[in-house]
Amino acid sequence: MVKFNKLLKKGKTLLLAYDQGLEHGPIDFNDLNVDPIYIIEIAKKGKYNGIVFQKGIAEKYNSEIKKSKVPLIVKLNGKTSLVKGDPVSRQLCTVKEAIKLGAVAVGYTIYIGSCHESIMMQEFEQIQREAHKNGLLVITWIYPKGKSVRGKSKAKLMAYAARIGLEIGADIIKLQYNGNPKDLKWAVESAGKAKVVVAGGVKRDEKKLLVQVKEIVNAGCAGLAIGRNVWQSKDPLAITNKMRKVIWKK
Amino acid sequence: MVKFNKLLKKGKTLLLAYDQGLEHGPIDFNDLNVDPIYIIEIAKKGKYNGIVFQKGIAEKYNSEIKKSKVPLIVKLNGKTSLVKGDPVSRQLCTVKEAIKLGAVAVGYTIYIGSCHESIMMQEFEQIQREAHKNGLLVITWIYPKGKSVRGKSKAKLMAYAARIGLEIGADIIKLQYNGNPKDLKWAVESAGKAKVVVAGGVKRDEKKLLVQVKEIVNAGCAGLAIGRNVWQSKDPLAITNKMRKVIWKK
Amino acid sequence: MVKFNKLLKKGKTLLLAYDQGLEHGPIDFNDLNVDPIYIIEIAKKGKYNGIVFQKGIAEKYNSEIKKSKVPLIVKLNGKTSLVKGDPVSRQLCTVKEAIKLGAVAVGYTIYIGSCHESIMMQEFEQIQREAHKNGLLVITWIYPKGKSVRGKSKAKLMAYAARIGLEIGADIIKLQYNGNPKDLKWAVESAGKAKVVVAGGVKRDEKKLLVQVKEIVNAGCAGLAIGRNVWQSKDPLAITNKMRKVIWKK
Amino acid sequence: MVKFNKLLKKGKTLLLAYDQGLEHGPIDFNDLNVDPIYIIEIAKKGKYNGIVFQKGIAEKYNSEIKKSKVPLIVKLNGKTSLVKGDPVSRQLCTVKEAIKLGAVAVGYTIYIGSCHESIMMQEFEQIQREAHKNGLLVITWIYPKGKSVRGKSKAKLMAYAARIGLEIGADIIKLQYNGNPKDLKWAVESAGKAKVVVAGGVKRDEKKLLVQVKEIVNAGCAGLAIGRNVWQSKDPLAITNKMRKVIWKK
Amino acid sequence: MVKFNKLLKKGKTLLLAYDQGLEHGPIDFNDLNVDPIYIIEIAKKGKYNGIVFQKGIAEKYNSEIKKSKVPLIVKLNGKTSLVKGDPVSRQLCTVKEAIKLGAVAVGYTIYIGSCHESIMMQEFEQIQREAHKNGLLVITWIYPKGKSVRGKSKAKLMAYAARIGLEIGADIIKLQYNGNPKDLKWAVESAGKAKVVVAGGVKRDEKKLLVQVKEIVNAGCAGLAIGRNVWQSKDPLAITNKMRKVIWKK
Repeated sequence: MVKFNKLLKKGKTLLLAYDQGLEHGPIDFNDLNVDPIYIIEIAKKGKYNGIVFQKGIAEKYNSEIKKSKVPLIVKLNGKTSLVKGDPVSRQLCTVKEAIKLGAVAVGYTIYIGSCHESIMMQEFEQIQREAHKNGLLVITWIYPKGKSVRGKSKAKLMAYAARIGLEIGADIIKLQYNGNPKDLKWAVESAGKAKVVVAGGVKRDEKKLLVQVKEIVNAGCAGLAIGRNVWQSKDPLAITNKMRKVIWKK
Repeated sequence: MVKFNKLLKKGKTLLLAYDQGLEHGPIDFNDLNVDPIYIIEIAKKGKYNGIVFQKGIAEKYNSEIKKSKVPLIVKLNGKTSLVKGDPVSRQLCTVKEAIKLGAVAVGYTIYIGSCHESIMMQEFEQIQREAHKNGLLVITWIYPKGKSVRGKSKAKLMAYAARIGLEIGADIIKLQYNGNPKDLKWAVESAGKAKVVVAGGVKRDEKKLLVQVKEIVNAGCAGLAIGRNVWQSKDPLAITNKMRKVIWKK
Repeated sequence: MVKFNKLLKKGKTLLLAYDQGLEHGPIDFNDLNVDPIYIIEIAKKGKYNGIVFQKGIAEKYNSEIKKSKVPLIVKLNGKTSLVKGDPVSRQLCTVKEAIKLGAVAVGYTIYIGSCHESIMMQEFEQIQREAHKNGLLVITWIYPKGKSVRGKSKAKLMAYAARIGLEIGADIIKLQYNGNPKDLKWAVESAGKAKVVVAGGVKRDEKKLLVQVKEIVNAGCAGLAIGRNVWQSKDPLAITNKMRKVIWKK
Repeated sequence: MVKFNKLLKKGKTLLLAYDQGLEHGPIDFNDLNVDPIYIIEIAKKGKYNGIVFQKGIAEKYNSEIKKSKVPLIVKLNGKTSLVKGDPVSRQLCTVKEAIKLGAVAVGYTIYIGSCHESIMMQEFEQIQREAHKNGLLVITWIYPKGKSVRGKSKAKLMAYAARIGLEIGADIIKLQYNGNPKDLKWAVESAGKAKVVVAGGVKRDEKKLLVQVKEIVNAGCAGLAIGRNVWQSKDPLAITNKMRKVIWKK
Repeated sequence: MVKFNKLLKKGKTLLLAYDQGLEHGPIDFNDLNVDPIYIIEIAKKGKYNGIVFQKGIAEKYNSEIKKSKVPLIVKLNGKTSLVKGDPVSRQLCTVKEAIKLGAVAVGYTIYIGSCHESIMMQEFEQIQREAHKNGLLVITWIYPKGKSVRGKSKAKLMAYAARIGLEIGADIIKLQYNGNPKDLKWAVESAGKAKVVVAGGVKRDEKKLLVQVKEIVNAGCAGLAIGRNVWQSKDPLAITNKMRKVIWKK
């Protein structure tokens, strides 16, 4: 049985994503949020259900992470934004290593539609298997990318992404929301017993964000894995608390 | 000796295919059949000889599958429909994992004629070997695909697919039927001691389907592995029973 | 020491090849010879020194093969004729598996001149090593193929193929004969202590075939590995006996 | 905990780089500095905190290196300057081998932006893991290279390189300095708990070099990994001592 | 410590190369020298310090080689001359196998400048490591080849080749001599503690050859690895003795 309660409380979750340093570079950061300790503090005070790091940060800031008691999710693959063409993101950390670092879950990104799709699907297979053998949750970022998906319906791609997550054995599927609640509901249905969380994406107006959070929860999602909208905010805890209220309907 | 009786009764079989979620996306589904539990119910009540799932569904719905007592076939490879060009479908589940999930057979797709053909042939080799060592049946989807086969005779390709299945060690070969009973008979002959089952394909008029089922059985096939024609039907059990009567000539 | 006597009698051999089902498809077959049992019967009654099968047939018809007492040669790689461009033929059966199936020798094809040449050469290395460790003979089909060899001298390519076989450790080298006895003699010399057998190729007039068999033996070859000229013949045993007389000069 | 004191004294370091023989060829050398013994002498007398060699030199000159007591850093990958196109530098020595040779740290180059980036990132993962398991420091040369990065901001690339080092688990990140102290400071911040050292690069005027050393230290870097500016100098120890004074502010 | 005395006498060596059968085909041979036994006889009577064979010949003629007492060098990679484009030569024999065959040294070719350079460099790494662990000498053929090196200075490439050999851990580096003694001297210096031997190349006038042998020795090389100039000669032992006198200055 999948132990969702490692990351979900009452079926809902709010995860803090901080893998942007590898994916986008420090261009996303300022003097405060460039520091992983600042992020760990937000995660702790904001009572996040999990925090996402690459191996390097999970290792060098391990004592701070452990002290915070925020559940650790180690992102197992990644790539820079520099290389052009269809993306491929390869494994940069093992499941065993993630366990040693204290992770309760591992993350992996699959760019569906990329001509390298099958490489990531296959690499994911081993990770999923080893993670489940060791009782870890598996979160899969599934994003349509590459020449093949240009111009295709975002609604269909979102539902397809959700379904792929279920078929290949993800426990939690992280999707990019197309903004249409009905489409998201269909994606959640397509994911079956797997849970759906939505990616926060670029920083947006607070009101718009909270409207979206509501839509996300109402569509049946488990919650969000959010980064820039929180740690680029002037008051990360304020926005966190507002989201928590929407998610857990307190 | 190949234990065909794990999936065949009196030399015949009717298998329920449900790997379309990965191969085509939820576009094939509606609110009912998007749910694997609905499918498992059909398989159980329709007395299917086997049901085909990807690892993710076989894992998350394992208790429902086991309760149904329908023999489980785990599909070991797959791909999305998004990537253009010659197809490659790589292994997404191990034989060991399939055994743990309770499978009596494993499935694997080979796209012959694809420039990636040799990758799939070689991956299949290991699967076939490990499956036979553990007493599992091996079902091979063999579909001609890619630039190299365009315009080639469908009859010859169908027979070639059947023969390849025999040569590389498949127990059951799943083919796409070209609609000519004589050609199918030759394909069955070419498959030697390996059994041939025909893929259901897109949903068709019920009468036409039943005519084809009769042709398939008369050509010497073991039966069908069918999905959309059943679970997209308004009355899946009715069509199932009609097919059963044709197959087992009751 | 290489145990040539597993396949050679008095230094000569006549091998029955039946790997065409994978390489060319059932287009080479009729209602009789499509059936491996028909072939096994020919091999037995014709007293062939060995019979060549892919894993699938060696496995499914294993009891018939064992009963026939014809020495089994398992072909370890193969490909379809569908894919265009420079050919690559990858391993589809292990040496261990061949041993389990009762093989006394293994076969492997290398397409020299193909841009994938090095893949096959390297795959062959492991097979050769493991086969010799286990006392099996190694037969190497060495055929020039691909863009790079177009227009090159067939005589030189034939001798080169023979020499490559010796250099990489083949025991028996299967060549395509260019029709010139002097060139074949030089190829045999180039093969050193490795034995040369000639491929039968497409079906030919019986007289022409027997003239060629004589040339082949006189050039110092160990014999032939022949298929279509035998099992496509109306009287396979008659042509077999005629060839045997030429080869063993009875 | 990372044992930086294996290479840093009071948080600062001066490393002697000598992997140019593989990367550029002997064109960088003269009759003196072509000889590794000459370099080892400089490292010893100049009290360098570490010396960088490829496996071949670390092995053939091992007794000289050990006698010198200069900490050994084995560079684990490398390539020639001959091949055109996006660079890839593959592993040419294992961590185990480096340990046997007496290394306290291993080095690895990643060319970010190269279309082969993911190959190096993935190879690095295993090295990082094994090195840390064995208590070795990991130094990562991270240089933007290839078509994708042409024309991009050097400041942003430098900070991105630093951040990537942190994210993937480097202990010490070797960067190419763009000449702007403010940008370098931001790169150091982006590297978090990982240390930054600057590559010496081509030989420059002594005064300019010392100005840069000051900037480097003031920006928060741990120091330099320098080669040609030292061993191409007429007085390697003089320039070394001048740099040491700037770095340790004596 | 490298045990050079396995192949060098008083610091000098004369090796007999016979890997041309794979690299060029039997076009290099006549009725005499096509036979490995003829070559072994030359090696024995000419008191060669080593003889170079591919696995196939080392295996099939092993008793003759052992009887001759000429030290055996097994060439571990190779390729045909048929494939166009940048060359890649892959491993065709393991170090373990070479040891079993009685080798005191192993050989490996790296085509620097080829776009496949990194494949050979990486394959070499494992061979070098395993050979040294087992006390075998490692000889590296390093030849600039491919589009990238066209038009480049032969002198610089020769020195670069020598240096690469040292950096990656070769004990003996086999180079193609550009004909300029000064350049060769610089290459020898660049090789440091690794020894340099020169490839014989195509057959030349005897006088010119002996002049070159003198230049080679005077430049500090350990000697030659020579084939065609010896076994294509009408009197292989005469030319051998003349070379020996120049090399050992008797």
